Amino acid sequence: MDDSFTRQISFLLETDKLKDVLRLNHLADGNRRETTAEHCWHVILQTLTLADHAPAGTDIAHVVRLLAVHDLVEIDAGDHWVTDDNREGVKEREQAAAERLFALLPETQAREFHDLWLEFEACETTEARFANAMDALHPMVLVFASGQPDPTHEPLSAETMRRTKEDRLAPFPTLWAYARDLLDKAVRDGRLLP
Amino acid sequence: MDDSFTRQISFLLETDKLKDVLRLNHLADGNRRETTAEHCWHVILQTLTLADHAPAGTDIAHVVRLLAVHDLVEIDAGDHWVTDDNREGVKEREQAAAERLFALLPETQAREFHDLWLEFEACETTEARFANAMDALHPMVLVFASGQPDPTHEPLSAETMRRTKEDRLAPFPTLWAYARDLLDKAVRDGRLLP
Repeated sequence: MDDSFTRQISFLLETDKLKDVLRLNHLADGNRRETTAEHCWHVILQTLTLADHAPAGTDIAHVVRLLAVHDLVEIDAGDHWVTDDNREGVKEREQAAAERLFALLPETQAREFHDLWLEFEACETTEARFANAMDALHPMVLVFASGQPDPTHEPLSAETMRRTKEDRLAPFPTLWAYARDLLDKAVRDGRLLP
Repeated sequence: MDDSFTRQISFLLETDKLKDVLRLNHLADGNRRETTAEHCWHVILQTLTLADHAPAGTDIAHVVRLLAVHDLVEIDAGDHWVTDDNREGVKEREQAAAERLFALLPETQAREFHDLWLEFEACETTEARFANAMDALHPMVLVFASGQPDPTHEPLSAETMRRTKEDRLAPFPTLWAYARDLLDKAVRDGRLLP
């Protein structure tokens, strides 16, 4: 087993910790919070399923690569949400996490994976924009489309929620129209405040 | 929201149930069993990480697609393992699960996703063979490489474990050499019987 392989296995064992990170949202059945690892699989499946909503020419395989690594920094920095009181310093903690985690890999691969994370975060390429849209939509599908109770937090206003989603979803008109329908439904269901 | 989109969302809500399926193996820290959804993300990350161990020309993006859907049938059929007393009828239950789950999707996509599952199961294409190798290796990395206790089950013999892995891993010499090292380590660690 050469050094490169040893490092790849160390990276895989370390990234197992993403299964211990709990997201704010519950599963669609409302029974428990989702782990970030579970979200990562499901948002990849969602991307393959909704690929026809991406602009023509979008490299879906690359979107999937971005999503496979996009949340690894939560192993050190935790899952944070836009209404957290605790947003201060999150960006710096995530950058430090990326430095630490990707450095476990062989050097060339460390750069490749780190670049995937930076690309996702910058949200400038076609693929990163679609990956971010998928990421923004996924918890809305679980929580608002499911028709199940979500005991996660005190209801936010629909306007607050809309503001957290618009930047990432509005560039995709069909997805954004659906997301706005979900917000209206969430108000009717008493999940969001009007 | 057209009928096609409605069906895609129904499929995503139904596949959320893969987060309720528990696998036999524990996480690398030994604290709890892994959910199948978590495994699906991590085996995709493992595939991107170990892609250089695939034969030249392997379409890694296709391997990832196979892995994203390969365990969906467990929603209805559960996680079964080679030593289960209860293997009888598993194949039939999995086929029925595939019929039910993929039929939630729009017709063309239902066929595409069903075909991915059939390709993974048949294990004949280059991509399906590598996907199956990744699937066979993943729990070995978590359980045997981690150095953590695994309270999952009574120790099996190393020979029984070897037989469950050889078909899928032996075609990839580096991976199979590593897997055999892990089996030896598991015997030394008292996890497998000599």
